[in-house]
Amino acid sequence: MGLQVDERVKSNQQSGDKVSEHLARFVADTRASDIPPHVRHEAKRALLNFFATALGGCQDQAIRLGLGVLSQFAGAGAASIIGRNERVDGLTAAFINAVSSNVFDFDDTHVPTVIHPTAPVAPALLALAEQRRVSGIELLNAFILGVEIECRLGNAVSPGHYRRGWHITATCGVFGAAAAAGKLLALDPLRMVWAFGNASAQSSGLVETLGSMAKSIGVGNAARNGLLSALLAEQGFAGPDRPLEGPRGFIPVMSDGHASARDPAPELGPLTAGLGESWEIMRNTYKPYPCGVVLNPVIDAVLELRERHPLQADQIHSVTVTGHPLLGERTNRPAPASGREGQVSAQHSAAVALLCGAAGVAQYTDMAVSDPSTMALRAKVRVEDDPAMAVGAAKVAVRLNDGTEFQSFIEHARGSLSRPLTDAELEQKLVPLAAYGCPKLNTAPLVDAIWSIEDTSDVHDVIRRAVPA
Amino acid sequence: MGLQVDERVKSNQQSGDKVSEHLARFVADTRASDIPPHVRHEAKRALLNFFATALGGCQDQAIRLGLGVLSQFAGAGAASIIGRNERVDGLTAAFINAVSSNVFDFDDTHVPTVIHPTAPVAPALLALAEQRRVSGIELLNAFILGVEIECRLGNAVSPGHYRRGWHITATCGVFGAAAAAGKLLALDPLRMVWAFGNASAQSSGLVETLGSMAKSIGVGNAARNGLLSALLAEQGFAGPDRPLEGPRGFIPVMSDGHASARDPAPELGPLTAGLGESWEIMRNTYKPYPCGVVLNPVIDAVLELRERHPLQADQIHSVTVTGHPLLGERTNRPAPASGREGQVSAQHSAAVALLCGAAGVAQYTDMAVSDPSTMALRAKVRVEDDPAMAVGAAKVAVRLNDGTEFQSFIEHARGSLSRPLTDAELEQKLVPLAAYGCPKLNTAPLVDAIWSIEDTSDVHDVIRRAVPA
Repeated sequence: MGLQVDERVKSNQQSGDKVSEHLARFVADTRASDIPPHVRHEAKRALLNFFATALGGCQDQAIRLGLGVLSQFAGAGAASIIGRNERVDGLTAAFINAVSSNVFDFDDTHVPTVIHPTAPVAPALLALAEQRRVSGIELLNAFILGVEIECRLGNAVSPGHYRRGWHITATCGVFGAAAAAGKLLALDPLRMVWAFGNASAQSSGLVETLGSMAKSIGVGNAARNGLLSALLAEQGFAGPDRPLEGPRGFIPVMSDGHASARDPAPELGPLTAGLGESWEIMRNTYKPYPCGVVLNPVIDAVLELRERHPLQADQIHSVTVTGHPLLGERTNRPAPASGREGQVSAQHSAAVALLCGAAGVAQYTDMAVSDPSTMALRAKVRVEDDPAMAVGAAKVAVRLNDGTEFQSFIEHARGSLSRPLTDAELEQKLVPLAAYGCPKLNTAPLVDAIWSIEDTSDVHDVIRRAVPA
Repeated sequence: MGLQVDERVKSNQQSGDKVSEHLARFVADTRASDIPPHVRHEAKRALLNFFATALGGCQDQAIRLGLGVLSQFAGAGAASIIGRNERVDGLTAAFINAVSSNVFDFDDTHVPTVIHPTAPVAPALLALAEQRRVSGIELLNAFILGVEIECRLGNAVSPGHYRRGWHITATCGVFGAAAAAGKLLALDPLRMVWAFGNASAQSSGLVETLGSMAKSIGVGNAARNGLLSALLAEQGFAGPDRPLEGPRGFIPVMSDGHASARDPAPELGPLTAGLGESWEIMRNTYKPYPCGVVLNPVIDAVLELRERHPLQADQIHSVTVTGHPLLGERTNRPAPASGREGQVSAQHSAAVALLCGAAGVAQYTDMAVSDPSTMALRAKVRVEDDPAMAVGAAKVAVRLNDGTEFQSFIEHARGSLSRPLTDAELEQKLVPLAAYGCPKLNTAPLVDAIWSIEDTSDVHDVIRRAVPA
């Protein structure tokens, strides 16, 4: 009997019995000097992109309404809201900044999981950095580790998790925020496990809410509640021993594809394999356009055509967008009724890119979608499937009234892992977004502060440059 | 083609296509006068039990630590904490009061689902009642409707939901709190659907956290986030059209037993059948003892024996507890190491009932569990299975050193639906709980205020009697 138990324990350990503890120990033990320079640089790119999208989103209605309600309950103003002058307590700030950065879905994307990794993690850290003095190096380290936990959990439960209906940015983000905040708080491994456990009680967010403001609650809570989880753990607020891998823990309950929660058999090996060697943030990408990521090559193709040929809208007879059937399935939307629907419309995206030579936040407002000349051109765009084409590629053909036809083919879109935005392009992304959401902000000092964040002994120096004077 | 679409729509409607809207309309339209007097009386019993357990729990470590952290971020003190003098913002108060009432698992139980229905719903309403003037009749109506939504959702996803690992009090409670708060806010049906949608983004809580403080985060959030969901909806913060029944909504994602989220087929009929005719609160029960509900007949049997026979601990040779195998499976725990483990130990429960003639909060502390005479008697208790016995029944046999044996059999425990606690017993439950958690409180005025809540034009009259002078 004793032997049987021993063997079961051994077998469980081999199959990931101690995943929570293993990950907690990794986060607690990893020093900034353990992280290679190219990984730290990628983290700075993610932060630059984060500030860009938060500045762009900070005036959205979801922010206005959410902040209006939360302000009635918020504590004294110790923390900043990116792009705005209100000051609120740190938990509320974490919520709002996460919403701002994600509200247009213009934030970063971890390719294997479609997690937007920075939205939940960075705001938790920034809120904490306004409460306790934090150096830039500490912040980068905590940020990278938070993203690592968030994306590894996402890998473990993918693809069933999102397919079932979980908004993976929210459900995994709360763990990333807890890990990152826990790192800044210097939690020991036991307390880090508790932080994961406190987060596990708060992991939520449904795909059904996408396209409505309710989506933002899940994302905002991921940042807020991850921070809360770590702060509670710091004070001794204890969670279960195995919040991730336990029989009623996050992975068995929120993965899909197992017949019974009584005997789950999730694949736990990859969760801890190569920890500290490979870094998930290196699989992070940044969108050039604030729309569904599958539309990026379509817009690239149109802009390329437009650069090569002088196209006038009234000369255009028809536009054909061709891609893998997934493109049509997700974006064949000839008559979007709102800016949000425009973001997943191939017709709208092709039309604005042709008309404006741009596909930025201004091209995806409710007003832009109902613009008569856009609507007229949109009506000439059709989407065709070509199963032989790769996902991620697109072809655009423009036929003029005189019969002339121009074509453009994009194999890898700008912003994909194969063709990442350059540092300069990320800087260029920030400028119009800040102009849109926070026109008073002088962006150059913010950009400088992000690139040189490792030299900062107090991250507050960065944060205050993201708030209008 | 048009016909096909029509038929699909019709079929979807028949199978519950409009469940969110239907439930929202029910909550929005039901007036206090639509609710029968016996249902309103049951609601008062639930509230009495709620204040009792919140007073008992309000000094627990989870409250102390949770309040310590949240207070750093809490807004100005507009809302009361039951049994304590701190004042905090309403969202924080809703969180803390829910935790207090549930922390010992001594709160009410909706029999079909094992939801603790009042913990998430009542605190959301009380917090709102301190912000806006609310009459007792309005509060009771909103409370009953919130419990109705919460428990009907629980019915819809049971038993797979809890079995998979969802802490159903938390996951369904957030909808109950949203519905109840939405009713007090007089949300129209559209906004009530949004409140459900905002709640759907926040439905969380894992069974893995039970037995640790992290459990309380799920329960506290259910109250807090339900209230937040309704407040956001009131301001126009919109959710999806079908947050409950949509393909990636609460029911398909968080039910079990469907092969693919793309084509869910949950049973939605019962969710709306008999709305306004049968009332879920009538299936609510109140525990006489703060331990696992399956231990209630064991304690009843011991107390009955003890009343019939003068038993001295040193005369006792052995104690045999017999019940349905479920009793042994859940509570055969000869050496509990903490008060929380004692709550699910048949050995400990029988021992304290024999020694103290009571099984109250004082008998389930960490100290009580390590008391030497309790430990000595506990060692003499063993649990036996009898598959022929009904779940809910128990037999206890005490054998003395001289060979004498006494037996007692309990078919229905006190506090079960067949043998509910009387109003007087509920009053008697409150007194020692208040003495434990808030000894300074004069309980009689609170009890009077609850029984006469329908006469109150401002519920604040009740709340202030639950706070020490």
